[in-house]
Amino acid sequence: MIRRLGALFVVSAPSGAGKTTLCREARLRIPELAYSVSVTTRPRRPGEIEGTDFRFVDEPTFRAMLDRGELAEWATVHGSLYGTPAAPLDLALREGRDVLLDIDTQGAAQLRKRYPEAVLIFLVAPSMAELETRLHERRSDGDVEIARRLARAREEIALWKQYHYLIVNRDVKEAMDQLTAIIQAERCRTSRLGLALTDLEVKE
Amino acid sequence: MIRRLGALFVVSAPSGAGKTTLCREARLRIPELAYSVSVTTRPRRPGEIEGTDFRFVDEPTFRAMLDRGELAEWATVHGSLYGTPAAPLDLALREGRDVLLDIDTQGAAQLRKRYPEAVLIFLVAPSMAELETRLHERRSDGDVEIARRLARAREEIALWKQYHYLIVNRDVKEAMDQLTAIIQAERCRTSRLGLALTDLEVKE
Repeated sequence: MIRRLGALFVVSAPSGAGKTTLCREARLRIPELAYSVSVTTRPRRPGEIEGTDFRFVDEPTFRAMLDRGELAEWATVHGSLYGTPAAPLDLALREGRDVLLDIDTQGAAQLRKRYPEAVLIFLVAPSMAELETRLHERRSDGDVEIARRLARAREEIALWKQYHYLIVNRDVKEAMDQLTAIIQAERCRTSRLGLALTDLEVKE
Repeated sequence: MIRRLGALFVVSAPSGAGKTTLCREARLRIPELAYSVSVTTRPRRPGEIEGTDFRFVDEPTFRAMLDRGELAEWATVHGSLYGTPAAPLDLALREGRDVLLDIDTQGAAQLRKRYPEAVLIFLVAPSMAELETRLHERRSDGDVEIARRLARAREEIALWKQYHYLIVNRDVKEAMDQLTAIIQAERCRTSRLGLALTDLEVKE
C-alpha cells in the first residue's frame, strides 16, 4: 500500500492573469483538493459568509494569532490584514489531502519558508500587451489604476524563477489542463512517498 | 514567446511491470516525443529493421563508439552490448524536442550523470505478488527464470528513491495518464525555461 503526505500547491499571479477563474475551475474539477479560509480584519461585505469566504476578526485578535505563530502567511492589503491559519492546513496535509492556496507573491515566499515541500505555481498572461488588454476589458479600473497594476505586475513577473512551475494562461482550458497535470505529477514524486511503498520494499 | 530546451524522460522498470506496453502507448498518444534507436552487437532477428529497431554493429565498431564517448549509456545484456547514441539525443534536446527513453536501472544512472536535468521515472507493478502473477501469466518463462526475474526485480525496486517519479501500474490507462501528466508538468517547470520568457521579462 502506498501512502503519502498531502502536497501544498500555491498559485500566485499578477492581477489580470486569470488566477481567480483558474482557482474557481480547480475547485470544480478537482473536488478532493482542500482549500483554506483566510482570516481578515477587513469588514464583511454584503453576501460574504463568515467561515466560508473569510473568518472576520478584529485587529487585536489577528495580532494575537500572529504572535502565537498561528498564521502560515500574512500580509497587509489596502490597510487591512489578511492571513492563512496554519492549523487546518497542517491537518489536511497530515491526513494526506492536497491543498490549493491562492496567495500573492509575498505570501508565497512566507509559505515556502514554513513548508519547504510546497509546490509554487506562477500564472501569467501570454504577454504584457495581453495583460494590459485584459485589465482594460475588465472595465473595473481607471487608467491610473491600470497603470499602477501593470507596474506592479512587472515587479511580480520578475519573481517567476522563484516558482517551480509557470503556467501561461492563453485560455482557461489549457491552463486548467496544465494545473491538473502538475497536481497529478506531483502526486507521483518519489520525494513525497517517504513513508510509503511498504509492500514494494525488499523484505527478507 | 516562450522557448525551452527539450526534456529527457527516462523510464525504468523491473520486468513484468508493463514498461513495454506503456512506452508503446506513449508513442501513440504523444506523437511529438522523440525516441532513440539503440545500437547493439546482438545479431539481427527476423523481422527487425536496421535503423528502426536497432543499429546493428560488430563489437569493434561498438567499442570504438564507446571510446569516442559517442554513447550516452551502455550495458551488457546476455553477452551482447547495447548502447544509446548521444548525438541524435543531443540534437533533439537542442531543438526543443522531448525525448522518451526506455532504459534499465544501470543505464538510467549513467544518463543521469550525463544529463543532470533528465527526468527519471520508475514504473512498478502494484505489489510483488501482482508482479509474480504477471510473470506467470506471460507463460514465456519457466519457474527458475521467474524466480530469477523476481529476485532481480527486488534489487531494482530498492532503487526507486533514485528516481524522480514513481508510477504504480494498476492499469495501462491510469499509468498512461500519469506519464502524460508528468511530461506535461515538466514542460511547465521554470528550471527548463532559462532562455525563455523574453516577452514577459521586465524591459526598461
